[in-house]
Amino acid sequence: MPTQNHALDAQDRYFMMLAIEQAKHGLYTTRPNPAVGCVIVQAETIVGQGFHPKAGEPHAEVFAIKDAGAQTIGATAYVTLEPCSHTGRTPPCAIALIKAGIKRVVIAGLDPNPQVAGRGVAILQQAGIEVKVGVLTAPAEALNRGFLKAMRTQMPYVRLKMATSLDGRTAMASGESKWITSAAAREDVQTLRARSGAIITGSETIIADDPQLNVRSTQLGVSSEQVPTPRVVVLDRRQRLSHDPHSEYQLCRRAETLYWRTDDLTALLKNLVSEHHCYDVLVEAGAGIAGSFLSQQLVDELIVYQAPCVLGNTARAMVEFNPLSLAQQLRFEIESHEKIGHDLKLTLLPL
Amino acid sequence: MPTQNHALDAQDRYFMMLAIEQAKHGLYTTRPNPAVGCVIVQAETIVGQGFHPKAGEPHAEVFAIKDAGAQTIGATAYVTLEPCSHTGRTPPCAIALIKAGIKRVVIAGLDPNPQVAGRGVAILQQAGIEVKVGVLTAPAEALNRGFLKAMRTQMPYVRLKMATSLDGRTAMASGESKWITSAAAREDVQTLRARSGAIITGSETIIADDPQLNVRSTQLGVSSEQVPTPRVVVLDRRQRLSHDPHSEYQLCRRAETLYWRTDDLTALLKNLVSEHHCYDVLVEAGAGIAGSFLSQQLVDELIVYQAPCVLGNTARAMVEFNPLSLAQQLRFEIESHEKIGHDLKLTLLPL
Repeated sequence: MPTQNHALDAQDRYFMMLAIEQAKHGLYTTRPNPAVGCVIVQAETIVGQGFHPKAGEPHAEVFAIKDAGAQTIGATAYVTLEPCSHTGRTPPCAIALIKAGIKRVVIAGLDPNPQVAGRGVAILQQAGIEVKVGVLTAPAEALNRGFLKAMRTQMPYVRLKMATSLDGRTAMASGESKWITSAAAREDVQTLRARSGAIITGSETIIADDPQLNVRSTQLGVSSEQVPTPRVVVLDRRQRLSHDPHSEYQLCRRAETLYWRTDDLTALLKNLVSEHHCYDVLVEAGAGIAGSFLSQQLVDELIVYQAPCVLGNTARAMVEFNPLSLAQQLRFEIESHEKIGHDLKLTLLPL
Repeated sequence: MPTQNHALDAQDRYFMMLAIEQAKHGLYTTRPNPAVGCVIVQAETIVGQGFHPKAGEPHAEVFAIKDAGAQTIGATAYVTLEPCSHTGRTPPCAIALIKAGIKRVVIAGLDPNPQVAGRGVAILQQAGIEVKVGVLTAPAEALNRGFLKAMRTQMPYVRLKMATSLDGRTAMASGESKWITSAAAREDVQTLRARSGAIITGSETIIADDPQLNVRSTQLGVSSEQVPTPRVVVLDRRQRLSHDPHSEYQLCRRAETLYWRTDDLTALLKNLVSEHHCYDVLVEAGAGIAGSFLSQQLVDELIVYQAPCVLGNTARAMVEFNPLSLAQQLRFEIESHEKIGHDLKLTLLPL
């Protein structure tokens, strides 16, 4: 009967929403693993829930099964990503769900990881479990854009972050720029860093600002120590910087900092996925590097913290980019706009 | 008893909100008069409502009284602006309310017009009517910012409208600019024009674009013919333009177009109030004029239609303005941000 199906669909969306809320607890800590949540429901009541907290620790399903105890038998499990089918650092979750006596599994989206990719679903179905795939796929996938893009294309999800004035300036002609945006906007940048496996910057930025580019927020819901430190990559074509424990620049004193000496940004991004498992990459650099990433169409998401001020037409432009006609402009779609402190945060998707 | 007062306060706000909705019907047509609405309530039920449609026609109270008929006796009247006390083109509304047997009058805000200014309230009170002033004052006054500012200061409320890219550009270096913002944003500009007694532009804009600067929208809720045509003022220091029925420029063919030949923008604005009863003024011009108005602190509201595109650092800057340090920047507060079509509409108040 269609009425019953509609009621079941609504119920499935509701519990999946709660599973997504679970997954969010791991948003800043599971790298390079995806953030996953699980909710177990028996007779329309939640009997267990869990999330994957950290690479090397058990997956969301295992925590939820443990939380539910004996009440897993005949229950429905809601999982934000297809349960794994391979033995990695932990045994396969598909098997754990079968052993726990789960009767029905609802999944937001399939895992494109070639080690899973539908095999989790197949194992469950072979054990006679009813499987439904595709509930709240978009919001569940929004938590793991980097992981999913890397598994599908071997390229990371690249966020370009800029702080500008209303007239698109990042600093005065003199270089004076501290601070254009408010403290609240700078605090929000911490959430972008905390989601990133790598942060790309330029040697110019290091020489001008000597930034730390680390995660030091107290407002992430987890302590900064639990957040894996993003690897910093310095674009340094002219070989002006290198590791030196006594360097005047903080990032050059860190042994983990990578230096990229060529123009080939695509090769760098591929390398970050294949060699370093960095699936979410944040670019925090100057107008030149922003222009290179944008004009080479390497940006998945542009985040602009826009301060409501006008710096004037001799101030520095946000992007080094010189199209000759309107037809050559860079165009975006506005994904979201929100006020952060006194400023506006715009999230834009390149068209 | 405080409980009864709270209930009455909530009820007063509710009916005042409906009176404000009534006032909005006149937003584009009452110039130079303010937009005013009235709701008459008997035993918690609306028995009459009305709004002021046009200068020379009856005020909101008169329409509401007529609508209520015999049910005005003992009723409460909600009015978004203090009822008038003087005989203008119509008899005083305070007297009309008394004659109708109204028992209580709730007013959003006093009328700063020196011909009223508290006298409306005094007349009502002298007739034994209970008067409450100050319910939803801010939203009611938002409808008549120009009228209220002009009555209080003899200066108009000035809106500066700009259309820019994300990087604060208004045109390519070549001048190419049609169109940066979407059709929906350009349609929204019609609401700004329809609220304006005058539109200020520059001779450069006329020579470059030959604009009409008229109201031609079908989406205002009233037909364009009912909207008084805004008077166009051309800033023309170099005396490049003048009235000529055979001019190549549309605005120069109109006899009503004003030309302002001096640098003194404050004198122009005062003149628009005293000589032309233009209380809401819209500036639609280029970067030079925008810079003059902003740096002389003559702007009450900056409206930016921001297209999600990057035009690059050789494109034209939005404001001609060259501060030497961050301390000299122009700063604003974001009053609102909303998506209009593909673009963002920002309303900013200068700090």
